[in-house]
Amino acid sequence: MTKAILASTSTLHNQEYLEYLIPQLSELYKNIDEILFIPYARPGGISHEEYTSKAAEAFLKAGIKVKGINEFENPAKAIKKAKGIFTGGGNTFLLVSELYRNKVMNALREAVKNGTPYLGTSAGTNIGGLSMQTTNDMPIVYPPSFQTLALVPFNINPHYLDPDPNSEHKGETRETRIKEFHGLNSQPVIGLREGSWLELKDNKVTLKGDLNARVFKKDKVPFEIETGTDLTDLN
Amino acid sequence: MTKAILASTSTLHNQEYLEYLIPQLSELYKNIDEILFIPYARPGGISHEEYTSKAAEAFLKAGIKVKGINEFENPAKAIKKAKGIFTGGGNTFLLVSELYRNKVMNALREAVKNGTPYLGTSAGTNIGGLSMQTTNDMPIVYPPSFQTLALVPFNINPHYLDPDPNSEHKGETRETRIKEFHGLNSQPVIGLREGSWLELKDNKVTLKGDLNARVFKKDKVPFEIETGTDLTDLN
Repeated sequence: MTKAILASTSTLHNQEYLEYLIPQLSELYKNIDEILFIPYARPGGISHEEYTSKAAEAFLKAGIKVKGINEFENPAKAIKKAKGIFTGGGNTFLLVSELYRNKVMNALREAVKNGTPYLGTSAGTNIGGLSMQTTNDMPIVYPPSFQTLALVPFNINPHYLDPDPNSEHKGETRETRIKEFHGLNSQPVIGLREGSWLELKDNKVTLKGDLNARVFKKDKVPFEIETGTDLTDLN
Repeated sequence: MTKAILASTSTLHNQEYLEYLIPQLSELYKNIDEILFIPYARPGGISHEEYTSKAAEAFLKAGIKVKGINEFENPAKAIKKAKGIFTGGGNTFLLVSELYRNKVMNALREAVKNGTPYLGTSAGTNIGGLSMQTTNDMPIVYPPSFQTLALVPFNINPHYLDPDPNSEHKGETRETRIKEFHGLNSQPVIGLREGSWLELKDNKVTLKGDLNARVFKKDKVPFEIETGTDLTDLN
């Protein structure tokens, strides 16, 4: 039974890394003293070691130790044995490429579906969807597939941004990009604003945090949902 | 000898489609009465036919007829026989996928390198670089490769956006994304602001338009270049 938090972002404006999520983590990782960190997404290109130290520092506040998957010789075994798992943000193309290259995409899906508590932020949340195809990231590396963990029956767009009505910029808005996605794909997309997360617990998927989220369905007008909405059967 | 305009955007704020480029087109397509349009990028998911009509309407002002590549049974032959070519913007993943699926990526590269005048806007400009890996678009479809036309010896980021110093959003800035690209790739990237274009003529690549552009090199501090700068040997 999946137990997970899929958060739009790791960090809120004027806050420390993971600060707003710390209270949730104590519940997610109840009675767990050490988790496995997957630093593959390397935000800004930082090293696995630097990124793992950053996660460890934040988790110290929840009284939990952190070990990077890069410290293990057999990453699939490390996932299988982990008491809890956290995948940090960064570049989703790199994250997905590394999960496949290290042959752990399936191991990760199995572990989380079998109940290993999982936290994802940003790219780590994006991979919780059916595919990584609603990422905002640059294709800095060519992954062998766009298919991801499918912890929820839809796609996720983290860091969802509303169109700026005053913008003079002609690049596509997020909404236009998702509309283009639906020209070729049929699964719903949830636009998770920064501060929102999906809670997977007791066979339910629920929107959490203070904000509304935006739901996009193929050939439908997008609509808002309130925090607390049950998304278990969104499809 | 390549003759091309690679423009950051098709449209400027408060202007009509292609309006600011019309004077350039009369020179690029001198003595040409009909061009071939590649509508594969389908902005906002519009059909090839709708998109071709839109391009035709704009080109009417330059006295040039437009035919969509989709109207031809043999698209590679259509490219080979075209007197001029224009690839419009939209989704770069879709554009590149369709160029490969229709087996015209090589034909297009050859035609343009052999002197068929080429206009690209947005996604159509992105493919003028070594690879499409500095696109801003969503990976709505999985292309067989990220390699593109290599009309210039570097990568292009169209619709370049400077970081907003007042933003409270935690999604990556364009500069951070390009830095992540350089964690894994070595070619320079030129950030083309809306209103700028690259002119390829007489074996030279020159920045044109009213604005500066921003150049990103691996392990270097990004820097600004003025309009008129010769980029032929940027590498």
